Amino acid sequence: MSTSVIERTASTSVPVISAIAERWSPRAFDAETTIDEDKLAAALEAARWAPSAYNSQPWRFAVARRGTDLHTAVSATLVSFNQMWAPAASALVVAIAETAAADGTPISHAAYDLGQAVAGFSVQAQEEGLAVHQMSGLDAAALAQVLELEERFVPFTVIAVGDLGDASALPEALQERENAPRERRPLTETVIANA
Amino acid sequence: MSTSVIERTASTSVPVISAIAERWSPRAFDAETTIDEDKLAAALEAARWAPSAYNSQPWRFAVARRGTDLHTAVSATLVSFNQMWAPAASALVVAIAETAAADGTPISHAAYDLGQAVAGFSVQAQEEGLAVHQMSGLDAAALAQVLELEERFVPFTVIAVGDLGDASALPEALQERENAPRERRPLTETVIANA
Repeated sequence: MSTSVIERTASTSVPVISAIAERWSPRAFDAETTIDEDKLAAALEAARWAPSAYNSQPWRFAVARRGTDLHTAVSATLVSFNQMWAPAASALVVAIAETAAADGTPISHAAYDLGQAVAGFSVQAQEEGLAVHQMSGLDAAALAQVLELEERFVPFTVIAVGDLGDASALPEALQERENAPRERRPLTETVIANA
Repeated sequence: MSTSVIERTASTSVPVISAIAERWSPRAFDAETTIDEDKLAAALEAARWAPSAYNSQPWRFAVARRGTDLHTAVSATLVSFNQMWAPAASALVVAIAETAAADGTPISHAAYDLGQAVAGFSVQAQEEGLAVHQMSGLDAAALAQVLELEERFVPFTVIAVGDLGDASALPEALQERENAPRERRPLTETVIANA
């Protein structure tokens, strides 16, 4: 499969808004700064206004700031690779899908709509100057236990959010990835019918 | 459950980028104008640069412009309520999740990541001045047959995209919804842990 490459700082082949064009997922987070509460609130607000099937809003979030017991507990549910860098983030935000309504009726688009909400979070956070990196490498069952979730609520990702840190302070194994260019399939392979 | 309400034109409680604050899902599409190809390309480009688990990019799109056989065929797979308004849209874009890799390995975050890509599409389209309305009310099996998809590719939504039309020309049953304010749960109910 061929891929096209852009530099992080370069524009995309067709101009798109900077919060999308310049967004990337760093692993170097500043381990000292606390989260800017206004910026975090704006990112959550952007998530809140995402569209969803029948406006069901099948998303919930758990916010854990560095230094709290919850931040430590959430960090411990990440796969070991993510534990190498993510605990430095000022906040870890757990993104949770509501996979069924309270009466048990399945919500078929829960994961899809949660993804839309997190995309809003990410775009707004980028606009605010926050660094964001989503992780799917986690123990969802352990995370559900930490958060005492009903079975119908399923943690999908943990979002590391905070200030960009010094990449040269990362473990050596991570430095190469940190500097790798972003790659995506070209649109010609993503658009499978075009009439 | 309490809800908070904003007018479409009002700002959100915390300022967020206008493409998120002002986005809404109309049903009144202009049935005459053709899609602006540059704007559509920008929306697809924004979708393309979404993040995904392990950069798997588990999304595909099928674009059907009004007047083509594909547009007619996609319209016919929508539930009858959506057929009342969506065929007027300049383009119908089918959003498809790659639920398993070619070797059969499941892609667990396919729906979530497709949602992220479509959110990027929507935000960019809004920025371009295009109206966007996603629909989950459709016959996915029929749509898969229309597009001759392998089983591992699952249509999730159809996105109506085009120019905003005249709401007073909508069937009466739809006019009330068209003018209803946007509503969402307050953040206090969406953020279930905050440490």
